[in-house]
Amino acid sequence: MTNGPVTDGKALVAQFVQRLERRDWAGLAELLDPDVVYEIPQSRERISNRDRYVTFNAEYPGDWHLEPQVVLGDDRNGSVLFNWSVGDESSLAIAFFKFVDGRITKITDFWPEPYEPPPGREHLVERW
Amino acid sequence: MTNGPVTDGKALVAQFVQRLERRDWAGLAELLDPDVVYEIPQSRERISNRDRYVTFNAEYPGDWHLEPQVVLGDDRNGSVLFNWSVGDESSLAIAFFKFVDGRITKITDFWPEPYEPPPGREHLVERW
Repeated sequence: MTNGPVTDGKALVAQFVQRLERRDWAGLAELLDPDVVYEIPQSRERISNRDRYVTFNAEYPGDWHLEPQVVLGDDRNGSVLFNWSVGDESSLAIAFFKFVDGRITKITDFWPEPYEPPPGREHLVERW
Repeated sequence: MTNGPVTDGKALVAQFVQRLERRDWAGLAELLDPDVVYEIPQSRERISNRDRYVTFNAEYPGDWHLEPQVVLGDDRNGSVLFNWSVGDESSLAIAFFKFVDGRITKITDFWPEPYEPPPGREHLVERW
């Protein structure tokens, strides 16, 4: 198992997803600042503490799995587009990250849900 | 006005947002591959052509404005978290990009909408 400090932003995001997927809660905590802030802007939910954030993930219901599609990061910010699946259901989700001294200080999570397109652009757009 | 080719992925994303905000349609087109594919996974909408994609933006209703919050990019992929506003209303949105030879070949757009949090995590989460 690959634990320990990670300094590169892109590698930090990749390790974050991998340790979540493995339910490696100790390894996940190592990537996080003790005062990490986790936010979901869509539901206006916030967790401002590393232990509570790890518990939030450990208690999250269902046999969920994460598959990263795109991982990006520099020395201050990162992002991941990932496929989230539970059983036969799957959807795309996104997280943005802030880093300070090789630890994650902020996570902003997005869970976009399906919607019907507004009228007026049918002449430009195809559906799938 | 800063037009012309842009080779760095992060700069490409920054220019994309800036030229959209300026309604610089010719400058926007310069950043795009002629066969660029634009997708909104939430509404399962796709545009597979540069001219139609530029028209889609030019015809988009409302006096909308974009303010980038985080811009990331390497030589193959990029992402932007931005604030989208029309009048007094604003929301966060996200786009991911793929690049080939310094042009954008794929744009994947997400428009996350507000939702109420599911029950069961009130002991860990605060609201704002």
